[in-house]
Amino acid sequence: MTPFRIAIAGLGTVGGGVVKALAARQGELSQRAGRDLRLVAVSARDRKKARGFDLPGWSDDPLALAGGDADCVVELIGGEEGIARQLVETALANGKHVVTANKALLARHGKALAELAEKNNVTLKFEAAAAGGIPIVKVLREDLIAHGVDAVKGILNGTCNYILTEMEATGRGFADVLKDAQALGYAEADPALDVGGGDTAHKLAILASLAFGTVPRLDAVSVEGITHITADDIAFASEFGFRIKLLGVARRVGDRIDQRVNPAMVRAREPLANVGGAANGVLVQAGEAGSFFFSGRGAGEAPTASAVIADIVEAASGAASPVFGRPAAALTALEPADAKAAASPWYLRFEVLDVPGVLAAIAGHLSEAGVSIESMIQRVRSPGAPVAIVMITHEAARGQVERALKGIGASDKVRARPCMIPMEA
Amino acid sequence: MTPFRIAIAGLGTVGGGVVKALAARQGELSQRAGRDLRLVAVSARDRKKARGFDLPGWSDDPLALAGGDADCVVELIGGEEGIARQLVETALANGKHVVTANKALLARHGKALAELAEKNNVTLKFEAAAAGGIPIVKVLREDLIAHGVDAVKGILNGTCNYILTEMEATGRGFADVLKDAQALGYAEADPALDVGGGDTAHKLAILASLAFGTVPRLDAVSVEGITHITADDIAFASEFGFRIKLLGVARRVGDRIDQRVNPAMVRAREPLANVGGAANGVLVQAGEAGSFFFSGRGAGEAPTASAVIADIVEAASGAASPVFGRPAAALTALEPADAKAAASPWYLRFEVLDVPGVLAAIAGHLSEAGVSIESMIQRVRSPGAPVAIVMITHEAARGQVERALKGIGASDKVRARPCMIPMEA
Repeated sequence: MTPFRIAIAGLGTVGGGVVKALAARQGELSQRAGRDLRLVAVSARDRKKARGFDLPGWSDDPLALAGGDADCVVELIGGEEGIARQLVETALANGKHVVTANKALLARHGKALAELAEKNNVTLKFEAAAAGGIPIVKVLREDLIAHGVDAVKGILNGTCNYILTEMEATGRGFADVLKDAQALGYAEADPALDVGGGDTAHKLAILASLAFGTVPRLDAVSVEGITHITADDIAFASEFGFRIKLLGVARRVGDRIDQRVNPAMVRAREPLANVGGAANGVLVQAGEAGSFFFSGRGAGEAPTASAVIADIVEAASGAASPVFGRPAAALTALEPADAKAAASPWYLRFEVLDVPGVLAAIAGHLSEAGVSIESMIQRVRSPGAPVAIVMITHEAARGQVERALKGIGASDKVRARPCMIPMEA
Repeated sequence: MTPFRIAIAGLGTVGGGVVKALAARQGELSQRAGRDLRLVAVSARDRKKARGFDLPGWSDDPLALAGGDADCVVELIGGEEGIARQLVETALANGKHVVTANKALLARHGKALAELAEKNNVTLKFEAAAAGGIPIVKVLREDLIAHGVDAVKGILNGTCNYILTEMEATGRGFADVLKDAQALGYAEADPALDVGGGDTAHKLAILASLAFGTVPRLDAVSVEGITHITADDIAFASEFGFRIKLLGVARRVGDRIDQRVNPAMVRAREPLANVGGAANGVLVQAGEAGSFFFSGRGAGEAPTASAVIADIVEAASGAASPVFGRPAAALTALEPADAKAAASPWYLRFEVLDVPGVLAAIAGHLSEAGVSIESMIQRVRSPGAPVAIVMITHEAARGQVERALKGIGASDKVRARPCMIPMEA
């Protein structure tokens, strides 16, 4: 059989890992693919950089790879527009298979790219775009398909999970732990995309499309990060038997889809609560078939390269399931569920002055909004210092809780913006 | 495109689930497959049985399905020989794709069947043969392939896991819990294949082949069941911070493969320890890519039907990865590792008479075999009754521990066969 010619654009951590794994297991991977896998061209920013491996077919211009003789272009440049998008579009238009780890690109332009791939009778694969080495893209696209999916819940950002795990283990505050994480290379110099929840949102939009057969729509994801989570919140969560995790949750609500990224209270015995450090974990509620859980390393050289290699081998072997599991034309318009209607019990924390009437005021606002309290902890730290009041509510809609907190936050006896975190079922 | 014609042999729990899921989601599944999925023929024991769904193309003789006009024969009869084997072989020889849930057949005749499938240019798929709804077959065959696999460890039998979970929750003994499990339908009237470890061994032999590229070899699996586990063992495990699970473990030891099924002590915080009830869980150590964990329902109508449906859709879409991930001719001969050399710390329990010198004798035999003790609990229950002595050893080879226990077991002061359980790393 003719060889399968591969071109790789982007030789950072992941690209380097792909080149190394391809070289190390060329024979075995070719056997699996049924074709000789051959790296024929690469492009990256700096030709002179010492990489520890040979570079065939160097090109300064990544776009040249889309015009070469490769059967498959591997896009590892990143970014939702610019050169990455241009490369993927041109490669698909030129009848080349594309493998990418580009979550932003897929979350923004997934449907158009799927159409382009179909039109040109090639595949577009992106296992590495969500949860790194965990094959959750394929699981949703090809495995848990017989009974429909009710919900996907994931810890999809290792940086946030590392920070939250460290905060719990050490009792330290967010800013403090973030600084260390940056020094250790676990967090970027500009951490906004991670800790603000944006990265998780990209991945969630992709998983939601696969799970529900909808057009991926990043703009339909409501996003809240972890920057406001305090050491106190984590300690209180633990007292109640929960852990705080940044979750991406996509769930079917009637004929609509609710997609949201936010810190959530997860019961300590649940699998997602036990995903520690920089790992990722995904829970899929697959209708009658029940819940399935997947965890492992979600980033880094080897796990991400593992996902890219699996895609390359699959493309080479001729597997041709539709890009998002269904023909692009069959992807349905995603109707976002009403975010304010999302109901759950809530964890609420207030920092208040230790003066008479504060609790009555808080309770009054909650009651007025129809939110009832299940349990409460009030803790004085030192005389004169603000008092923490923490409550777990009975089930209430987000809109109700927000209304109550708006009123409560306006009080001059409340010291900081109240904190609200949903309890995951 | 021409329709994909499906014939199903065996309409028990799983077969019924497949027929129902195909009917319920015919349109969506056909879109995924890129072809119209059409059930054209069925065969089962009793035509008259009320099933709650329509039966097209009934045949009293399952073998007739291999000769009909189906593109794909789904074998859900079971059994490693007889009609099931004949049907699979004939269907493959006739150029039909085969989907099966038959673990015994694959574990015994996997290589020959893979050769037959390749020769006839069709696929043979068996996602449902191991861990039910968890797509572990595909994960090992297609996903975690870039960095090699060091070990696969699984809870692969829901009946055993249910019994062990119940024993822990209630403090009751094995026989007692088994009886209840049978009454509730969680265990078969003849439970030997489950509680003896044989069912786990079948599944392990298949997973080992996928993980290591070796010929599946059931006879190379050493098997020990859970029938000798006592409520005491489970309580002591818990005191040491462990849970007892029936594990199937396949691991690379140099250029050999160690395959064994036995009760193992798993640290309580490990994912495998937290697979409760009738669920299944699998941990894959994938070289540099790290460890990945998968859990969910491993048996029952919907989870197993989910796996069968995924295989059918994949076969219909033309995906053609090799049966065991590599061409049958490339599967290497499995060289079993020396089972006696398998080293780990061990849990040991002795039931002894409360007379002077017993502990000295036990310690002497262990010392002679080179086994050193890390910690010990000795517990008297009531005067005159046997005393339980429980030890955790430092790392020692199975052969060493067996040698010591043989000596100890021969003593007339030891009341029952000593119990040895490895501690999983």
